[in-house]
Amino acid sequence: MQRSSERSSKGKGTSVWAEVAARGTPLAERLRAVRDVTRNLAEPLSAEDCAIQSMPDASPVKWHLAHTTWFFETFIVSKAAPERAPFHPAFRVLFNSYYNAVGEKHPRPQRGLLSRPSLDEVLAYRAHVEDALLELIAANRLDAAMLRLVELGIQHEQQHQELILTDLKHMLSCNPLKPVYRKTWPLTSIQTMPAAWIRVAGGEKRIGHEGAGFSLDDFEIASRPVTHGDFIDFIEDGGYRRPELWLSMGWDTVNARAWEAPLYWEKRDGEWHTFTLHGMVPVERNTPVCHVSFFEGDAFARWAGARLPTEAEWEVASQRASPEGNFQESGALHPLALREAPAAGEIAQMFGDVWEWTRSDYAPYPGFRIAEGAVGEYNGKFMVNQYVLRGGSCATPASHIRATYRNFFPADARWQFSGVRLARDA
Amino acid sequence: MQRSSERSSKGKGTSVWAEVAARGTPLAERLRAVRDVTRNLAEPLSAEDCAIQSMPDASPVKWHLAHTTWFFETFIVSKAAPERAPFHPAFRVLFNSYYNAVGEKHPRPQRGLLSRPSLDEVLAYRAHVEDALLELIAANRLDAAMLRLVELGIQHEQQHQELILTDLKHMLSCNPLKPVYRKTWPLTSIQTMPAAWIRVAGGEKRIGHEGAGFSLDDFEIASRPVTHGDFIDFIEDGGYRRPELWLSMGWDTVNARAWEAPLYWEKRDGEWHTFTLHGMVPVERNTPVCHVSFFEGDAFARWAGARLPTEAEWEVASQRASPEGNFQESGALHPLALREAPAAGEIAQMFGDVWEWTRSDYAPYPGFRIAEGAVGEYNGKFMVNQYVLRGGSCATPASHIRATYRNFFPADARWQFSGVRLARDA
Amino acid sequence: MQRSSERSSKGKGTSVWAEVAARGTPLAERLRAVRDVTRNLAEPLSAEDCAIQSMPDASPVKWHLAHTTWFFETFIVSKAAPERAPFHPAFRVLFNSYYNAVGEKHPRPQRGLLSRPSLDEVLAYRAHVEDALLELIAANRLDAAMLRLVELGIQHEQQHQELILTDLKHMLSCNPLKPVYRKTWPLTSIQTMPAAWIRVAGGEKRIGHEGAGFSLDDFEIASRPVTHGDFIDFIEDGGYRRPELWLSMGWDTVNARAWEAPLYWEKRDGEWHTFTLHGMVPVERNTPVCHVSFFEGDAFARWAGARLPTEAEWEVASQRASPEGNFQESGALHPLALREAPAAGEIAQMFGDVWEWTRSDYAPYPGFRIAEGAVGEYNGKFMVNQYVLRGGSCATPASHIRATYRNFFPADARWQFSGVRLARDA
Amino acid sequence: MQRSSERSSKGKGTSVWAEVAARGTPLAERLRAVRDVTRNLAEPLSAEDCAIQSMPDASPVKWHLAHTTWFFETFIVSKAAPERAPFHPAFRVLFNSYYNAVGEKHPRPQRGLLSRPSLDEVLAYRAHVEDALLELIAANRLDAAMLRLVELGIQHEQQHQELILTDLKHMLSCNPLKPVYRKTWPLTSIQTMPAAWIRVAGGEKRIGHEGAGFSLDDFEIASRPVTHGDFIDFIEDGGYRRPELWLSMGWDTVNARAWEAPLYWEKRDGEWHTFTLHGMVPVERNTPVCHVSFFEGDAFARWAGARLPTEAEWEVASQRASPEGNFQESGALHPLALREAPAAGEIAQMFGDVWEWTRSDYAPYPGFRIAEGAVGEYNGKFMVNQYVLRGGSCATPASHIRATYRNFFPADARWQFSGVRLARDA
Repeated sequence: MQRSSERSSKGKGTSVWAEVAARGTPLAERLRAVRDVTRNLAEPLSAEDCAIQSMPDASPVKWHLAHTTWFFETFIVSKAAPERAPFHPAFRVLFNSYYNAVGEKHPRPQRGLLSRPSLDEVLAYRAHVEDALLELIAANRLDAAMLRLVELGIQHEQQHQELILTDLKHMLSCNPLKPVYRKTWPLTSIQTMPAAWIRVAGGEKRIGHEGAGFSLDDFEIASRPVTHGDFIDFIEDGGYRRPELWLSMGWDTVNARAWEAPLYWEKRDGEWHTFTLHGMVPVERNTPVCHVSFFEGDAFARWAGARLPTEAEWEVASQRASPEGNFQESGALHPLALREAPAAGEIAQMFGDVWEWTRSDYAPYPGFRIAEGAVGEYNGKFMVNQYVLRGGSCATPASHIRATYRNFFPADARWQFSGVRLARDA
Repeated sequence: MQRSSERSSKGKGTSVWAEVAARGTPLAERLRAVRDVTRNLAEPLSAEDCAIQSMPDASPVKWHLAHTTWFFETFIVSKAAPERAPFHPAFRVLFNSYYNAVGEKHPRPQRGLLSRPSLDEVLAYRAHVEDALLELIAANRLDAAMLRLVELGIQHEQQHQELILTDLKHMLSCNPLKPVYRKTWPLTSIQTMPAAWIRVAGGEKRIGHEGAGFSLDDFEIASRPVTHGDFIDFIEDGGYRRPELWLSMGWDTVNARAWEAPLYWEKRDGEWHTFTLHGMVPVERNTPVCHVSFFEGDAFARWAGARLPTEAEWEVASQRASPEGNFQESGALHPLALREAPAAGEIAQMFGDVWEWTRSDYAPYPGFRIAEGAVGEYNGKFMVNQYVLRGGSCATPASHIRATYRNFFPADARWQFSGVRLARDA
Repeated sequence: MQRSSERSSKGKGTSVWAEVAARGTPLAERLRAVRDVTRNLAEPLSAEDCAIQSMPDASPVKWHLAHTTWFFETFIVSKAAPERAPFHPAFRVLFNSYYNAVGEKHPRPQRGLLSRPSLDEVLAYRAHVEDALLELIAANRLDAAMLRLVELGIQHEQQHQELILTDLKHMLSCNPLKPVYRKTWPLTSIQTMPAAWIRVAGGEKRIGHEGAGFSLDDFEIASRPVTHGDFIDFIEDGGYRRPELWLSMGWDTVNARAWEAPLYWEKRDGEWHTFTLHGMVPVERNTPVCHVSFFEGDAFARWAGARLPTEAEWEVASQRASPEGNFQESGALHPLALREAPAAGEIAQMFGDVWEWTRSDYAPYPGFRIAEGAVGEYNGKFMVNQYVLRGGSCATPASHIRATYRNFFPADARWQFSGVRLARDA
Repeated sequence: MQRSSERSSKGKGTSVWAEVAARGTPLAERLRAVRDVTRNLAEPLSAEDCAIQSMPDASPVKWHLAHTTWFFETFIVSKAAPERAPFHPAFRVLFNSYYNAVGEKHPRPQRGLLSRPSLDEVLAYRAHVEDALLELIAANRLDAAMLRLVELGIQHEQQHQELILTDLKHMLSCNPLKPVYRKTWPLTSIQTMPAAWIRVAGGEKRIGHEGAGFSLDDFEIASRPVTHGDFIDFIEDGGYRRPELWLSMGWDTVNARAWEAPLYWEKRDGEWHTFTLHGMVPVERNTPVCHVSFFEGDAFARWAGARLPTEAEWEVASQRASPEGNFQESGALHPLALREAPAAGEIAQMFGDVWEWTRSDYAPYPGFRIAEGAVGEYNGKFMVNQYVLRGGSCATPASHIRATYRNFFPADARWQFSGVRLARDA
C-alpha cells in the first residue's frame, strides 16, 4: 500500500536562505504564523469539503488539521506537560499517521469515514494544543531537544499545508460541478521562452544538508522546465501510444489506467483544459507542465532525446539558480510562465512552480542515521520504490523549501504539482 | 458492481391495511408528512455526517435527501410544469440513481466525493421542489397518471428513509468513536420466548398484490424469528467454521471476509456487543437476530435442521399474523423482544423488527410487465442474483409495508436489518 | 471464486427414453463403455494438452480423468473393498472436487499446477480403479446402495465428459495457434428456418423427475433456438451498447469485461469468426447461437420483445418435442442447423445442440432432501446465484440427458455450449 | 504487472576471470556447450513439467527453451540468412519476451496456456536454429556486430538457465506431492562459522565494467552471508511481527501476504523445513539463508543493528574475495555451508550460493547508453523499482558471473536464490 504524506526533512529544518531571517524571528511567533497559514487554507472550505477523502493516497483536510496538531500534542505537550490530560483520549490513535512506535493507528484509507470529530471540534483541538505549546515555550519549559521538535513540527505542518492543497484539489476535481477553491486567477499572458541547454562542470561535489561527497561528470541541464506546450507536442506525436518511449512498468501503468494526458486534463471542444484550484481553465502552453508522474517525465525525456537529471546534478545546477520563485504565498496555486527571458546561462524556475522529478531513488545519504524513538520513523521507512523530486512547487510555503530539500513519491504519483526538467550528458 | 438501493413496489403503492386510512388522507398532506419524516431523520446529523459514503453499496444521507427530491423533480415537476427551470441543471445527472433512460448518472461508488452541493443547498432543493409539487397539486395540474407517480414518489421516499438509517448506521459503525445517533434506548428486559412450529396447510394459493396462482404443500413455520441468543448458540457450536453447514458460495464468502459473527458484532471482555444507532450495546439474547446475510440465515437453518421459507410460504403464513410490529415510528431502530407470549398457533413478529430472508430469488410473478419509460426501470432490472426478504424491519415506515411487499438483496448483504425465520416440510 | 463443474442428477440417473435400453444393458458393460468414451475423448491430446488449466472455472483434462476415477475409488472401492490400499494416498485430497465431508481438497484454481502425477500415471490410476470396480461387480460384492452409487458415478463421468470438451475448448482458444482438436467438420450448408411461436396451454402441471405440482398460465415458445444469424442482427442493432436492454448486473458485466459478442467470436476482415473444436471458422447464420451468458440471452430476448422461458414452461413444452438431437456422439461438437423444416406446431431442437437458459434460478423442488453423507454434497450446495439450463448440448452424451435434467450455471458463464430459446406470455 | 526475467549484461559478456579461458575457446564450441547445458537442465523433466506456469513472474521451462532460441533466430539467423524461412511464423510473437521493437508479444501471464507447440516441437526448434547458427559461424557469414550478438545470446541463455531452475522450483513447490527434481543431495554436515566484521577502506573507487568513478566512505562488511540459523533467530525474536523493523511498504507486504518465514519454509512437527530441488528437507542452520525478499533482508539487517551494503560497497569488498563458489555446476542447487574457516580478514562466499541484496536501486551508471534497435530494449527499460543483487547463486552458471554483474529484482521478489550480507558504517 502506497503512502507518502510525510516528507523527510534532513537537518535542522530551516531553509538555507531563510535561515538568517528565521533566526531573527522568535520561535513562538513563527509557530503562530505557520499555524495561522494552515487555518487560513481551510477558511474558504465548508465542513463537508474538509471531511471527504477522494483516494487512499490523499487525506481529508480535517485530518491534516488534526494530525499536525497531534504531532505537537504527542511529541511535545504530552511529554513536557504530562500533568495535562489529552484533549481527547481517542485522538492519539485517530490522528496518528504511521508512527508505529506511538501505537495503533486508524487505517489510512479510512480517514474519510470520520464525520466525527466535527471540523469545529478539530479547530478547538488545534487551539487547545497551540495554547498549551505556546504556554510551554513562554514558560521556558522546553529543553533544547524539545525546541528542535517544535522546529520539526513547524516543518511538518508546512509539509501538510502543501498536502492540504494537493489533496483538496484532487477531491474537488472528482466533483462534476468542478468547484472553485479561490476565485482569483493571477495568470498574465506572456511570450514563449525557448529552452536552452546549460552546461555544468562536474568534479568532486558535496550535496545534501550535511554535504555528502560525490563525483560527478559534466552534464547539461535545461534552462527551464518542460512546459504545457512541450507536453502537448509530445501527446500529439503519439507519446502515450508508443511503448518504445516508456519504462516497462510505465507502459503497463499507461495501459492499466488508460492515461492519455497528465492528471486533470480534459479535452473540451478539441482543446485541452485542466482542473485548477480556480476551476477548469484552458491549458496555457507557456506554463510548466504539472501533474505528471515519474513515468511520464521519463517518457517525455526519452522522446526529447534527453533524460531526467540525477538528484546530484539537480542540486549542483541549483546552486546557480535564484531561490526565488512562485510558491504558495503568491496565491497562484498553479505554475506560472516566465515573465522575462533569463540571462544567457541562467537556469530559471528551479524553485517553486513545480516539483521536478529526478531519476534518483530516495535512498539514504552516506552516514544517514535514523533518529531515536517515534520521531525516527519520520525519516527512513519510506526508502524503497520512491523517486526524489526537488525545488518545491506553487503549493509549497516559501520558507519551507531549501536547495537540499528532498521530496519523494512513487513513480506513478501524479496528484502533486510535479513536473519535469531535462538533462543530458555533456 | 452491485447495487440495490431501490426496491420494487408492485401495485399501486399503498399498504393493504393502511389503504382505507390513506385514502382518507389527502395526497398533499401525506406527501408533506412523509417529506417531514425524511427531514427529521437527518435532523440530529451534521453536514459532515450527511456527506460521507462508507461503502459502494451505501449512499450518503445527503444523496438520499437529494435523490428523493430528484425523483419528484424529474418525473413530475419538469413534465407537468415545463416552464419552470430546474433547480440546478447538473442535479439531473448528479442525483440520478440508475435510470438509464433519464441519461447520464454520477457513478454510485463516488456519491461520497460530493462535498458540493452542501447540505444546506440540498435542503433548499428539497423545499423548492416540494413547494412546486404542492402548488401543482393544489392547482389541480396533475392528471391521474401524474398523481400515481406522486404516490410512487412517496413510496420511493419511504424506501429511502429506511436506507438513510441503514446506510448511516454503517457509516457511524466505521468510526472508532462509535457515535450515537439517538440517545434513547427503548429496550426493556423480558423473558425468553420459546419458538414453536406452526403448521400451515398448503393447496392452491394466490400470492402477490395481483394474486398469482400457486400450488403449495403443507409446511411448518416458526412462531418467532431466530433470536440473538439462538445465533450465539450457533456460533458457539462452531457455526462459522463448519463447511458442511454452508452453501459453497457462502463458505467462500465466510472465508474471504473472515466472518465470525453477524455484522457489527464485537467481542469485548468475552461478551458479544453490537453497534446500534444508540451506540455499542451488549447483545440481548431475546431480540431477533439482525444484520445476517442470506448465507448466514441459510447456514443457521441447516444447523437447526430446518430451512428458510419460500416466498410463497412466508406470504401464506403472514395472512395469519398481526400486521402490527416494531417499525421505524417506534423509535427503537433495533429489533425488540416479544413482551408477551403469543397465543398457541399464533405467528409472532412477522411484520417489523427484521426483514426475513426467504429462499426465493427475486423473479417476476407470472404476467409481470415492466412499466413504460424511465419509471419502468424502477422494477425489473435487478431480477438476477437477488433474494426476497419480507415483512419490513424496525427501520421501515409502518405505512410503507404491506403483506405482499417484496424486498430483495444479494445473498451476501448484511447492512440491512435482515433476520431469519425457520421453516420445514410438514 | 464460484464454480459449478458438478451437476445435480436428481433421481436414479437414467434418461427417460434411454431407460428401457439401459435396463437391458448390464451395469458392468455400461460402466466400461462410458469409461471408454472418456478415454477416447483424451486420445487426440498430448500430455501437455491435458495438464493445463486456462481459468479457475475450468479444469485440466487430466484432472477430469483423475477426478471421475476418484469418485469410484472414494465412494465405492474404498468402502466395499477396504482391504485394498488406495492407488496413491495423496490422490484422496488431490482429486477431491468439493466434497468437504471427504476432507481436505486441492484448491480448484491450482489444478493446473500439477505436472505430477503424469498423464500416464493418471491413466494407470483409471485402469486400476476400473479393474477393481469391475471385479467387485463381477463378484457381487456391491449391495443395492453401492450399485446405485455406480449408476451415479456413470452419470457423474458423463457430466465430466461434457466438461472435458468445454474446458478443453476454452484452453485451446487461448492459444494464438488456434489448435484443432478434431479435423472433421460435419456442417452442411442449409436453408434458413424461420422461427414460429408455438402456443402451449397452461394449467396444473407436474415437473421434475418426481413430479412436483405447478400451476402454469398459457404461454408461447419459439419453434427453434435463436440462431447465430439472429444474434448478429442483435449485435448490429447495437445490442451490446444499449443499457436499456440489460439487467443492471448484466450491463455492469458487459462493460467490465468489454463484451461485444459471444465468447470465442473474432472479427476477421469484417466477418465474424468463431473458435470451435475444429479450429476457427466463419460464423454460420443458420446454426443455434452458443457461448452466450444468461445476461446476453436475457438482453437478446428483451431486444426481441420476448423473454426467457421459465424452467416449468420449458419442461412442459419439451413434452411435445422429439428427444433426438445433435449430441456428443454426432461428432459435430458444434450446434448444427436444422436440415428440414419442422411440421407446423412442432418444437424443434429442444434437445442437443445448445443448453437453453431459462429465467429460473436453481432452487430445490418442493420436498427436496439432500442425500446423507459425502454424496449428499453432490446436490444442493450450489443452490444460490445459479440459473437453470435445459436440454443438453452437442457436448452432452445422448444417454445422459433426459427431459427433467437440470443443468445450472452463474449468469455470467459463457464457456458451456449455452444458447437461447424465446418465450412470451400468451 | 512486474516482470524481470531478463538481466542486463553490461559490457562484452564474459566474466572477468573466465575471460582468458573463454578467449581460448572457440565461439562455436562455447555456444554448443551452453546450449547443451540448457537441454540437460530439462532432461529430467516431462513434457507436463515443462508446460506449466505457476505464477505470472515465472515462465514454463518450455517457454525458456523456446525463447532463448527465438533470440538467436530473431536477432541473428533471420538477419544474416534472410533466405531461410522462419521455423514457424507464429513463433516470432509467441516467444518474444518483451522486445516491443520486434512487434507483438504473447502476454507474459499466459505463457502457461500454450500446450502447443509441444516440447518435442520446441526441441526441434532448438536444433534447427542451432544448426543454422553454427553453419553461419562455420561459413564466416557473421560480422563482428553479429558475433557480439552471439556472445550476448550465450549470456542470455545462461541467464535463462538460472531462471529455468528458479521457475521450476516454484512450480514444483506448488504441488502437494513435493516432487524431487534431482535425487542427489550434496550437503555435508559441518561446523558453524561465526561472522566477523571486515573493515574496508573507502576513497575514490571505480565500479562497473566500464569503471564509473565513485567516492566511498570507509565501511565494514560481514565475512559471510546471513545463515539460515541467523534467520531462525530473527523469526524467533518476533522478526515478522515487529513493524519497527520494517520499511513501511515491507510491513504492508508482510501483512498482505501473511509472510512468517522465507519462501518455501514449512513447519513440520515444530521444525522448519524448506522445499529444495531435492524435495523437502529440514532447514540446515549453517547454510546461507535464501529465498528472502529485499524487504526481509532489510528488516533482518535492522534487527541485527546493521544495514544492507550499497552496490558500490559490495563491489569494492568483492575485489578482496575469491571468485570461486558454489555455482550451478556443483549440482547442489542449494546454498552450502562453508567447509573451512576463512582466514582472518577474508570475505567468504561473495560469489555463488546466494545472490546478495544491496540497498541500491537498479539505475544507470553515469554515461550509460541504451543500445540501438531491438536489442537495446535488453537494458534500461526496467530501471525503476528494482534493487541490485550481486554475486550469483547456486543456480548461476559459473562462467556467467563476474564481479561487476548486476542482477535486479523488485523488493518483494523471493523466488530467486536471494540472500543477505550485512554491512555497517565504519
